[in-house]
Amino acid sequence: MEKLKYRELVQKILMAHTERVLNGECSNRETALQTIFDVERDHYLVMVVGWHSGRRDYGSLIHVDIKDDKIWIQSDGTEVGVASELVEAGIPSHDIVLGYKSPFKRQFTDYGKG
Amino acid sequence: MEKLKYRELVQKILMAHTERVLNGECSNRETALQTIFDVERDHYLVMVVGWHSGRRDYGSLIHVDIKDDKIWIQSDGTEVGVASELVEAGIPSHDIVLGYKSPFKRQFTDYGKG
Repeated sequence: MEKLKYRELVQKILMAHTERVLNGECSNRETALQTIFDVERDHYLVMVVGWHSGRRDYGSLIHVDIKDDKIWIQSDGTEVGVASELVEAGIPSHDIVLGYKSPFKRQFTDYGKG
Repeated sequence: MEKLKYRELVQKILMAHTERVLNGECSNRETALQTIFDVERDHYLVMVVGWHSGRRDYGSLIHVDIKDDKIWIQSDGTEVGVASELVEAGIPSHDIVLGYKSPFKRQFTDYGKG
């Protein structure tokens, strides 16, 4: 699967998560969900941004980069796990790097070492 | 100043911060600084992403949105303050919203209420 396909797939997965959250339990919150795609630099994020009951709601729900034909997962707050979704969609696990795991720990995963 | 100018200025300020950090004290860190521009959806971020001495370095240094011709500062970890830089560049303060301050507190600032 070429790089272009990786990009399309990552965007599709992030969009699906955004829609799932917006249509689900969080739909009554004042907090917005931002889909942020920088296709030129290959950064793909879903951010939570807003206020809820007087408290700031802020942080990344998902952050994925594509770098040297590998998919780097920098942050993942989903229940299902973006890495699992990518594998299910046909991406070989050695093309996925769990950036949120330390470089040392990555060698003990089924994913790429980065 | 039209919306296009706002976009250009925000990108210029974020780029300058990225370069300042990369050329400055943080240049010896393993951590990367990502400039993330989604011009289509008007989200502009500088993110810190990496590992440093066995610890995860992750978070937004700057996050700016342009929404309804206003510049929303959602996150700002700079010393100078992006809002001050925008005002200095000629943006009227009522066109800047400090999103990281609560909607209640915003009325007591010199900036827009959002």
